[in-house]
Amino acid sequence: MSCEITIINAKIFAPGAPDGFTENGFVSLNGGRITAVGEMKNFFPLPDKKLIDAAGGLVMPGLVNAHNHAAMTLFRGMADDLPLMTWLQEYIFPAEARFVSPEMVYWCSKLAAAEMIMSGTTTVADAYFYEEEAAKAFVESGIRAVAAQGVIDFPAPGVPDPAENIKVAADFIERWKGKDLICPAVFAHSPYTCSAKTLKSAKALCRSANVPFFIHLAETRIEQDLLADRWQGSPTAYLHSLDLLDPDTICVHSVWLDKNDIDLLASCGSAIVTCPQSNMKLASGVAPVTDLLAAGVPVALGTDGCASNNDLDLFGEMDSCAKLHKVRNLDPSIVGAREVLHMATSQGGNLPGFGGTGSVAVGMPADIIIIDLHQPHLCPFYSIDSLVYAAGGGDVSSVFINGQVVMHDRQILTFDVVETMEMVAKLARRVCGV
Amino acid sequence: MSCEITIINAKIFAPGAPDGFTENGFVSLNGGRITAVGEMKNFFPLPDKKLIDAAGGLVMPGLVNAHNHAAMTLFRGMADDLPLMTWLQEYIFPAEARFVSPEMVYWCSKLAAAEMIMSGTTTVADAYFYEEEAAKAFVESGIRAVAAQGVIDFPAPGVPDPAENIKVAADFIERWKGKDLICPAVFAHSPYTCSAKTLKSAKALCRSANVPFFIHLAETRIEQDLLADRWQGSPTAYLHSLDLLDPDTICVHSVWLDKNDIDLLASCGSAIVTCPQSNMKLASGVAPVTDLLAAGVPVALGTDGCASNNDLDLFGEMDSCAKLHKVRNLDPSIVGAREVLHMATSQGGNLPGFGGTGSVAVGMPADIIIIDLHQPHLCPFYSIDSLVYAAGGGDVSSVFINGQVVMHDRQILTFDVVETMEMVAKLARRVCGV
Repeated sequence: MSCEITIINAKIFAPGAPDGFTENGFVSLNGGRITAVGEMKNFFPLPDKKLIDAAGGLVMPGLVNAHNHAAMTLFRGMADDLPLMTWLQEYIFPAEARFVSPEMVYWCSKLAAAEMIMSGTTTVADAYFYEEEAAKAFVESGIRAVAAQGVIDFPAPGVPDPAENIKVAADFIERWKGKDLICPAVFAHSPYTCSAKTLKSAKALCRSANVPFFIHLAETRIEQDLLADRWQGSPTAYLHSLDLLDPDTICVHSVWLDKNDIDLLASCGSAIVTCPQSNMKLASGVAPVTDLLAAGVPVALGTDGCASNNDLDLFGEMDSCAKLHKVRNLDPSIVGAREVLHMATSQGGNLPGFGGTGSVAVGMPADIIIIDLHQPHLCPFYSIDSLVYAAGGGDVSSVFINGQVVMHDRQILTFDVVETMEMVAKLARRVCGV
Repeated sequence: MSCEITIINAKIFAPGAPDGFTENGFVSLNGGRITAVGEMKNFFPLPDKKLIDAAGGLVMPGLVNAHNHAAMTLFRGMADDLPLMTWLQEYIFPAEARFVSPEMVYWCSKLAAAEMIMSGTTTVADAYFYEEEAAKAFVESGIRAVAAQGVIDFPAPGVPDPAENIKVAADFIERWKGKDLICPAVFAHSPYTCSAKTLKSAKALCRSANVPFFIHLAETRIEQDLLADRWQGSPTAYLHSLDLLDPDTICVHSVWLDKNDIDLLASCGSAIVTCPQSNMKLASGVAPVTDLLAAGVPVALGTDGCASNNDLDLFGEMDSCAKLHKVRNLDPSIVGAREVLHMATSQGGNLPGFGGTGSVAVGMPADIIIIDLHQPHLCPFYSIDSLVYAAGGGDVSSVFINGQVVMHDRQILTFDVVETMEMVAKLARRVCGV
C-alpha cells in the first residue's frame, strides 16, 4: 500500500477547480493519499515507480453513493411497476423475511460492491441488517464504506427481538470502529417504524460513539398520516422535537419538506441525501433540492437499493437528478452539471464519516477514477457537462481507492466477481422459485 | 447478404410474447429476415452455415430511435444548463449558421450512427439539413433510417433561400426513394417557424411521394404565443385546421396538449414521438403519455439531438420515460417497463416508413441485438424489467440490421469509428475555437 503509483497521460478534472482541465497531466498516489498532481511536461519518472498510462482518459474524483441498501441487489427486478403498498407488503417485506441471511447479505453486498466499483463509486453509505456481513464484503472489495446497522421496532433479519436493536447496533460499532476503510454507523429506518424511545436511544448511541446517524425522512406523502398518532407536525419537526437533528445526522430522501422543515435542517446543520431515481420509480415525489441548496443544507446523492432503482450507477443518477429538477421547475438553468458533480463527489465525501474524498489535489485521499473518453458518445468532449449528460458507469476504466488499484481496464483486481455473480444467481433461484 | 447466420445459445425475448423467455434458443437470419426461432434442443447445425455464439446473452429486437438530429453530435455539451432562449439564440442557432456544412452533416451523422449502433439502436428517424449527407452516412454505417430533410421558413444550411425549401426536399425524396435501408421523408420544423403555406406544401409533397411527414409540435409552453398572430387555438388544432394530421404524420415532443388535442390526434391516427430526456433537460415539460396511450395514439420514443439530451442511448431514455411519468403522476404502476419496451421497439418499428421491425419472430425484419447479461448490474435477471431499469447501451454486445452483422463483440464492422471520431474532433476544435 505504500508503493507509489503514478497515473500518466491523463486529462485531469477536479471539481471546484476553474473550468479548464489539465489537458495532459499526471497524478501520483502513495500511502492512501494523492502526493503529486501536475502537467506531463513536469513529470520525471524514477525507476521502480509504478506507472499507469491513462492514454488520454480523464482522471476525476471517485463518486460517493450516499445511500444504498447493498444487499438488496438480490431483489433487483423482482417486482416493479406496482403500487407502493402492494410492492412493500406483498413483495419486499415477505422476501426480506424469507431470504435475508448473513450469507445473503455478504454475497449480495459484494455484488453491489462490484457494480459500484465498475461504475466509478469509491465510497458507499450502506444501511441494512446483518451489517457485519456487508462490512466484510466491502473490506474484501476494497471500497470505502460507511456501514450502518439497521434499527427498526419490528423483528428484523438478525434482530428477532426489537428490544435488542440498539444493543446489536452498539456491538457492531464496537467491533468496526477504526477498522480498515469502514466507518460504522446507525440507520434508524424511519420516524414511523421506530418509536421515539428507539430514535433517541439510537441517536444517543451515535453521539457517544461519535458515528453518523442515518434516517429515512419524509420519503412519501403518507408518512405524515403514519406519524399522526405520535405527533401532529411534519416528520422533520418531529425529529427536531426529539433532538435528533445535528451535523452528524444524515436524512435520506426528504421529499416532503416545507419551508419550516428546510429552515430546521439548515439551522441544525443536518445533511440530506437525495435519491432521485428511486423517488421517481416509486413515485414518491421530487425533493426540494434547489430550496435545500439555497438554504445551505448539504445535499449528497444516493442510488437507494436495487429493489427501487434498479441499478447502482451514479452517472445515471447524476443525469436524472439534473434533468428532474429542471423539468419539475420548468427552468433549464437550475441544478446544473457542476452542482450535481459536486453533490456526487466532494459534498458526499465531506459528510461525517465519509473520509473527506472528492477532489484531485495533493494531500487528499487517493480515491480517483479514470474515464475512457475514446468513445462515440463522449465525442466531442467540450466540458465536464458530458460527465453528467453523456457518460455512464460503463465508461469508467480504472478505479483507485485509498491508493489501491481496485479496478484496472474494467477488471476488478480485489475479488472474484464471477464467483460473486454465481453465488447471487444461486440465491436468486430460490427467490424466483426455480 | 443472402448468407444465413444463426445466433445460438441465446436467451430470447420478443415483446408481446408471454412473460417468459426462451431460456436457451437460436435465431436464424437470412435475406434480411428472421427465418427461424427455436430452442437449442431443436437446432441441428448444417455445415457452411455461419454460427454466432451468444453465450447466454439475450436476443431482443433492435431499438427504434424515432427522433434525432444526428448531425448535432457536434454540439454535444457545447452549451448546457441555460435558459431556453439564451441557449437557442446565443449558442445553437449561431453555431448551426457557422458550422453546419455537408462535411459536418456527413461526419457528425456517422458519429451518431456509431453511438446508436453501439447502444442497440437499429433504426433512426433523423431530421436535419443537408439530409443527403446524413443518408449517405447511415447507408455506410448499416443502420436503417427514416431520413427527413428539414423545411423551415428561414435561410437554412443548404437552403439559403427559404422559397426553395420544398423543392430541396422533393429532390431529396426523388433521389432516395426505394434506396438501401433509407426511407426519405420531410421534417417541417414547427408550426411557428413554417408558414401555413409551407406546411401545406410540405405535407402535399409527402402525400404525393407517399413518405412520412414529421413536425415538432407543442414542445414548449411559449409555442402558443408564437402562433398567436396566425391562430387563436392550440398548435395541434392549428395543424388539424391545415389538414396536416393523418396516419402518415408523426408529431414530435407534443408536451402541451389538452384533451381536445389528444382526441384530434387519436381520431386522425397521427403518432407521437416522446423525447423525455430532452424535455427534462430543456425544461419543456412532461408529455401526457398516459393520456395519449389511453386514447389509442401510437407513442414512440426518441432521444432528440445531442445538443439537448446529450446522448443517444435509448436504454437510458426508456428508464427516464418510465420513471418520469410515475413521479409526475405520483403513481408507480403507470408507464411500466413492458409499455416502454413496446414504445422503443415494435411501436416505433411500425410507424409509417420505419420498416416494420420490433419483434423476434419468423418472417420479421432481421434487426436484432444481443445483450451481455454476465455483468454485476444485470444480476439477478428475473425479468425483462431489467432491460429498462438496469441495462444501458454499453451492455449491447452485437447488432444485426437487415440480417447484416453491424457490430460484433462491441466492434463496429461496417466503418472506421476511430476515423469518424477523429474527423468530428477536428470539426469540434473549430467550434470551441482551439
